[in-house]
Amino acid sequence: MAKVPYKTYLTETEIPKQWYNVRADMKEQHDPFLHPGTGEALHAQDLYPIFCEELAKQEMDTTNHYIDIPEPVLDYYRTFRPSPLIRAYNLEKALDTPAKIYFKFEGNNTSGSHKLNAAAAMAYYAKAQGLTSLTTETGAGQWGTALSMACSFFGLDLAVYMVKVSYDQKPFRKAVMETFGATIVPSPSDTTEVGRAILAANPGTGGSLGCAISEAIEVSMRDDNCRYALGSVLNQVLLHQSIIGLESKAAMEKLNEYPDVIVGCAGGGSNLGGLMAPFMQDKLLGKADPRIVAVEPASCPSLTRGKYAYDFCDTGKITPLAKMYTLGSGFMPSPNHAGGLRYHGMSPTLSKLYHDGYMEAISVEQSTVFEAATLFANKEQILPAPESAHAIYGAIQEALKCKESGEEKTILFGLTGTGYFDLKAYAQFNEGTMSDYVPTDEDLERGFSSLPKMD
Amino acid sequence: MAKVPYKTYLTETEIPKQWYNVRADMKEQHDPFLHPGTGEALHAQDLYPIFCEELAKQEMDTTNHYIDIPEPVLDYYRTFRPSPLIRAYNLEKALDTPAKIYFKFEGNNTSGSHKLNAAAAMAYYAKAQGLTSLTTETGAGQWGTALSMACSFFGLDLAVYMVKVSYDQKPFRKAVMETFGATIVPSPSDTTEVGRAILAANPGTGGSLGCAISEAIEVSMRDDNCRYALGSVLNQVLLHQSIIGLESKAAMEKLNEYPDVIVGCAGGGSNLGGLMAPFMQDKLLGKADPRIVAVEPASCPSLTRGKYAYDFCDTGKITPLAKMYTLGSGFMPSPNHAGGLRYHGMSPTLSKLYHDGYMEAISVEQSTVFEAATLFANKEQILPAPESAHAIYGAIQEALKCKESGEEKTILFGLTGTGYFDLKAYAQFNEGTMSDYVPTDEDLERGFSSLPKMD
Repeated sequence: MAKVPYKTYLTETEIPKQWYNVRADMKEQHDPFLHPGTGEALHAQDLYPIFCEELAKQEMDTTNHYIDIPEPVLDYYRTFRPSPLIRAYNLEKALDTPAKIYFKFEGNNTSGSHKLNAAAAMAYYAKAQGLTSLTTETGAGQWGTALSMACSFFGLDLAVYMVKVSYDQKPFRKAVMETFGATIVPSPSDTTEVGRAILAANPGTGGSLGCAISEAIEVSMRDDNCRYALGSVLNQVLLHQSIIGLESKAAMEKLNEYPDVIVGCAGGGSNLGGLMAPFMQDKLLGKADPRIVAVEPASCPSLTRGKYAYDFCDTGKITPLAKMYTLGSGFMPSPNHAGGLRYHGMSPTLSKLYHDGYMEAISVEQSTVFEAATLFANKEQILPAPESAHAIYGAIQEALKCKESGEEKTILFGLTGTGYFDLKAYAQFNEGTMSDYVPTDEDLERGFSSLPKMD
Repeated sequence: MAKVPYKTYLTETEIPKQWYNVRADMKEQHDPFLHPGTGEALHAQDLYPIFCEELAKQEMDTTNHYIDIPEPVLDYYRTFRPSPLIRAYNLEKALDTPAKIYFKFEGNNTSGSHKLNAAAAMAYYAKAQGLTSLTTETGAGQWGTALSMACSFFGLDLAVYMVKVSYDQKPFRKAVMETFGATIVPSPSDTTEVGRAILAANPGTGGSLGCAISEAIEVSMRDDNCRYALGSVLNQVLLHQSIIGLESKAAMEKLNEYPDVIVGCAGGGSNLGGLMAPFMQDKLLGKADPRIVAVEPASCPSLTRGKYAYDFCDTGKITPLAKMYTLGSGFMPSPNHAGGLRYHGMSPTLSKLYHDGYMEAISVEQSTVFEAATLFANKEQILPAPESAHAIYGAIQEALKCKESGEEKTILFGLTGTGYFDLKAYAQFNEGTMSDYVPTDEDLERGFSSLPKMD
């Protein structure tokens, strides 16, 4: 058989040695981050108290096209990368489509997702700066697990503020993180001022991601050997995640393929931003014009129904203001929604590219996503994370359009991770008890009312 | 760097196209399976009511050295194989050993283990014979998940009899299997005569693997389009799992390596039997003399403390009798024991090879195994299944001996799977509440007293 194999792996020496910084090729940059108190545009050094210096510089870097991946990070990448580019032959057959469907599978590592790509960089830079510890927050636990692994590998302590309701419901996530040596604190906690204040006001609260972020930042700021790390939304995260797209492009070149359409799920933008990076470069430079499609949950539709406005990155309103597509930091996604993708905003860089017409976006309801996930699992024999299944849904729609038109398009989507920790949602879907939720216009207005008033 | 990469993959076209049947090279065969009623030696056709004909033939085949892997099975293998051969550089460094440690990692598929290799073959042969369904039992859920996936892929119905206590405690395993279309029945159930009898006698029972096997066999035997499938112990399973060893050997040849010692965990023998197969061939043919070490739990020590005797393969005493190392089908391993490896017997083929001096065996207590698992997870960044961690422990012991002696030996061990569904045990270990259990001589005598009286 001369056919393309199921899985295409680069060799370990072929792993890209530089990340790609898409902002260096953008004609216009996103509006600057603003200080939440003064409203002044922030510079890299303003972020040094929160992030490692190197990461703060990366956050603001709009000029360097490529940034060398430090050798220790590359060496760590070699323990779980390259990830395979997989041809979805069995899904194609089930859909009876002439389209060629490829997916980049980031789930074959113990964190279960692409989050480890950025965690590796953040832990390394912290260690290189001489720090001894990091803090972060986690909701579902995917990011906390990834950072626990990276901190274990590079020899850093880690405190994870885990939303209390998740902490109580997901003891297994806690067990993984503890196996990698992290300290898990249910949030809100009595270890911080903000936590104590919230507990005093709401004694029985289950916590929120916003509160956990606030606690993690507070703890990091009171120890000069400690910084805070965040796994999505940020420009530095998109930079580190560009390894996904760079590997995908290199593997497709080996197969003489180039995607006509690139599909990714979009919550804060970490996976899609990484997957599309080198293809977006081709678009920005006029070398190629693939379509790029973001798929977001109908329950939290920041791109498709949000406003392009300055907003806080957290619900606690202590972070800098970012210009992005947002539902308002006060927007509360339905608790019925499974998995991630429940962030109120969207990466400022992705938001700008979307606003400038370089990307499309669609939204989809939860049970439809799980239908796509179940079809995919049965055909491709991989159980996808609910987040990833949004991209699967988008890819299937594109493949069905090809069936209609007879076009043999090449589709590339990002399979961000596995669903082993999301089986409660699968059980609900199997039992027919999964509920869909789409916010009403009034729900959205309530969220928008939390947007900061800008002069 | 000219050094060996972390991960060595064969290409999909390099996947071995034949399984290797170690019995064809054994100077003496294990004593024949006996009919439980008549005591007569069984022939392949005696097994046709239970297993597919092709599998029954494979079960009895002592003459064919190699058996072609059917093309549809090979094609399915290509969706999740080859599995990587990984050089454990970071573990070596942590141990400060001159030894080179390699492991064959079978966990990168949704079933989470090597069980899918045999499930693929069993589902295919059932479909090829024109059957419409299979039955099986599952305890922890690993085998049931693998067979659910394979049946989904080949288009067969599957009923999984799941030990009731696991069914109640592990709803997530049930959710995975249902996502792949399997029907899960808590055992004992009212769907079988044996189940109804047991329920009548013990209304509140949590069930046992022995009872689940009996129910699965009963159901398969009353439908001519249905057969039963078993994931360990059998010769057919060792045959199908030989793909692990064949791939390992081919990958090591690419690296100009050959193992001085091969280490595997041993419950029923499915993984070790597959991993060691082509190396055992070298031993049997006098071409090489690697050491082969089975690592079993101290709580269920069939090789190290069992008797070499005829015994039933199930606790329900309805299966054929097999000559094997056994603790007696009435032996009850401690409920405190995490994960698999709690089978009372051992593959008749492995038992024979062990009895004839071709293999060694050691046993290890549970908390020591989790110490090894935690070290491995932190260094190699893979969370191992408790079963697999027995092999990790054995490999570490060998590496430490090399440190002592200064020898640069090459160690190969089998990492059978991931521990994502075993986190309750990790949590117990992290909290210091894991209990070790080693059966007393009196415990063993009670087990031995269940051995059938042979004339």
